[in-house]
Amino acid sequence: MNIRTIRIGVVGLGTVGAALVESLQANAGIIRADVGAEVVIARIAEKDATRRKSIHAPGTVLSLDWRDLVADRDIDIVVELMGGTSAARDLVLASLRAGKHVITANKALLANHWTEVLTEAHKAGRAVGFEASVMAGVPVIHVLQSGLSGHRISAISGILNGTSNFILTRIGENGVDRRQALEEARQKGFCEADPSLDLEGFDAAQKLAILGSLVLGRWLPPQDVHREGIGNLEKEDLLEARNSFGYVLKPLAILKRRATGVEARVQPTFLDKRSPLAEVSREFNALLIESDAAGPITLIGKGAGGAPAASGVLADIVEIARRIRHADTGASVPRLPRPEHVHVLPYDQLESRFFLRFTVCDRPGVLSKIFRCLSSERISIANSEIRNTPDGATGLVYAATYRTHAKAVRKALKTIDVQPALVKRKTLMVPIQE
Amino acid sequence: MNIRTIRIGVVGLGTVGAALVESLQANAGIIRADVGAEVVIARIAEKDATRRKSIHAPGTVLSLDWRDLVADRDIDIVVELMGGTSAARDLVLASLRAGKHVITANKALLANHWTEVLTEAHKAGRAVGFEASVMAGVPVIHVLQSGLSGHRISAISGILNGTSNFILTRIGENGVDRRQALEEARQKGFCEADPSLDLEGFDAAQKLAILGSLVLGRWLPPQDVHREGIGNLEKEDLLEARNSFGYVLKPLAILKRRATGVEARVQPTFLDKRSPLAEVSREFNALLIESDAAGPITLIGKGAGGAPAASGVLADIVEIARRIRHADTGASVPRLPRPEHVHVLPYDQLESRFFLRFTVCDRPGVLSKIFRCLSSERISIANSEIRNTPDGATGLVYAATYRTHAKAVRKALKTIDVQPALVKRKTLMVPIQE
Repeated sequence: MNIRTIRIGVVGLGTVGAALVESLQANAGIIRADVGAEVVIARIAEKDATRRKSIHAPGTVLSLDWRDLVADRDIDIVVELMGGTSAARDLVLASLRAGKHVITANKALLANHWTEVLTEAHKAGRAVGFEASVMAGVPVIHVLQSGLSGHRISAISGILNGTSNFILTRIGENGVDRRQALEEARQKGFCEADPSLDLEGFDAAQKLAILGSLVLGRWLPPQDVHREGIGNLEKEDLLEARNSFGYVLKPLAILKRRATGVEARVQPTFLDKRSPLAEVSREFNALLIESDAAGPITLIGKGAGGAPAASGVLADIVEIARRIRHADTGASVPRLPRPEHVHVLPYDQLESRFFLRFTVCDRPGVLSKIFRCLSSERISIANSEIRNTPDGATGLVYAATYRTHAKAVRKALKTIDVQPALVKRKTLMVPIQE
Repeated sequence: MNIRTIRIGVVGLGTVGAALVESLQANAGIIRADVGAEVVIARIAEKDATRRKSIHAPGTVLSLDWRDLVADRDIDIVVELMGGTSAARDLVLASLRAGKHVITANKALLANHWTEVLTEAHKAGRAVGFEASVMAGVPVIHVLQSGLSGHRISAISGILNGTSNFILTRIGENGVDRRQALEEARQKGFCEADPSLDLEGFDAAQKLAILGSLVLGRWLPPQDVHREGIGNLEKEDLLEARNSFGYVLKPLAILKRRATGVEARVQPTFLDKRSPLAEVSREFNALLIESDAAGPITLIGKGAGGAPAASGVLADIVEIARRIRHADTGASVPRLPRPEHVHVLPYDQLESRFFLRFTVCDRPGVLSKIFRCLSSERISIANSEIRNTPDGATGLVYAATYRTHAKAVRKALKTIDVQPALVKRKTLMVPIQE
């Protein structure tokens, strides 16, 4: 066996790239022992001069253009940390074609180009590491890929966006309103410049697409994930749900195999207070994996930040370097994804319990009419609370249904919500996870 | 590449063995796809005729003697599920010497013969899988071995014994007494015939020894783990700690690197209500991993039972079979453990906060004497609650100290506990995890 130095090329020196350079230096001894060879950053490509100057990496060649890394025949592993889906896609595909292993933390790239990237890797006989793309340093990809090898995973549900979880936690626990909570998240650096990626569920849908594609062995397009943001929920709803119904609201991403297809959705969901995900609060992320034999398994950790994401990249580097060192490449080459996409079931077919909030006109007969609309769709109510607002003219009716179809509830609400004599605003409808 | 059938030999058809045979049959299609080859149980060894007859395994040769499996040159992987440390040790060593990969769920064997087993595997160039030995199907071994490759793990703390956790949960939440809780655990099948292995911490100490040996790269002997059972704690202590101090009692196993050595202990420990491990209740197990970059990572799941343990074995089978299939063996061979043992720090050197319960004689001057004994050892009290028992002659003093050394507390209690004019029974001393 030819023991040689393993050479890494890093593209992009943002927070993750800078943290990676640092942790590769700090952990050099551990990495050497783990791999059985020296692992060095041979080249870094970064356009921004300030960023290039900010790092201390003696012995590393700095470039402006990632093409220099792809052309360097001595580079074994390319780490893509540039972001975006255009140049990043070119870099990843070119690196694989040049016979390099690739590691990326780029969820948008993987979620949108899953089949293309994995097919190219399979053809090239090279590994693609993407531990950091979902839940940063929490090794959910490792667990799904090898910790549960040979298992049939029937469902995964998780809190994949820390910003939304932080905001809902603050509203639900402390009764601050949504605007204040967002401002707090911003101050703590949990928000993107454009918070809608987090708050509207786009970020979580991409992550669910990656996990789903991995579990199902074929592409789950992120745009097929049913997606709802956290924007319709008021402080009062969260407090009422918790105090009167025992429910905690979490921004859940859910993938479930069903007989007729796959359920894939990202939406605020009520959970029983004692559910393992209900206690995952603030900026923490979690994933609950259900398989045929192992019982429910939950992983919890920090899902964002430079150091945690760099930690996911580092684990991939060491795993791939170990295989290069031992000339073991077979098992790390991704399987060819099956060509057809995942068939996602329409949201209407979701069977669940639902939490409803009606903002009703406070006059005689309103309640009976609303409950009649529900029962005509065979929706039964498990419990209900009725509150009056200070103005005396508006009532709030909170109701938790028994298990029913989303279609039935939507149909009933469609009838109710068009009657200004009954309700004053659109009725809130949130699934309750069992 | 030579694509052939991969042959498993299973020794022992207890609950785990029977569940394994079943899940290998049920998941044959998934396993074939994961491995890229057929994986079959070629031989089973089991002395008990009833057990042999109870399983349905057409095409599998049944033996009375495990030596038949070792002698069979076509067997690739031997799965040891016989238990005990004598014949099991012979089987594991003989299998490795015969060039077979080995999988075992036997925590006693690994904890006590760590260096011997891993050295033999290293010499033979064969893998040893032991995912099921700790937390059954929850892939903590995979996460420590490869999900966090290249990381310096600074501490792990976990709930590794489901029986103790079940009992403490029942006492703390429902105020049942210890005897009732144990009876309940027995009825639910959570107890061994001899419950002292669970309740006295022997089981958790073996599991911590395995995790510690893995993290530290050298043997942590289970008998060097500081070990305390859950026998000294009363219902009243748990309720008082929760209601007045906000603490939840958990049976914790803790390994921590310190500048002067390693802290390794299994003992009931108070946790802040909001700690991630505080919510892990009933028979569930959990492990919290602290590393340099990833932030705290928690894994939660069912730590016992036939199907969950078989699930851990299955994951190992598929991982090793994949490598056989791809002729990749290098990276899966365990590293040679360093020859020296882990140096475990004496318990006296533990720095922590402590929860104390004094059972005092209810007369003037007692409190001032007790607090004087504490302060003369420089122990400061963060908060304290004083309760009277119905007989009027006995007081209960609960106190949470600030951070101090176990040695100082033990010294103070030694002075206090020998004075029958002050206290009526041995003072309870439980660490508080920060």
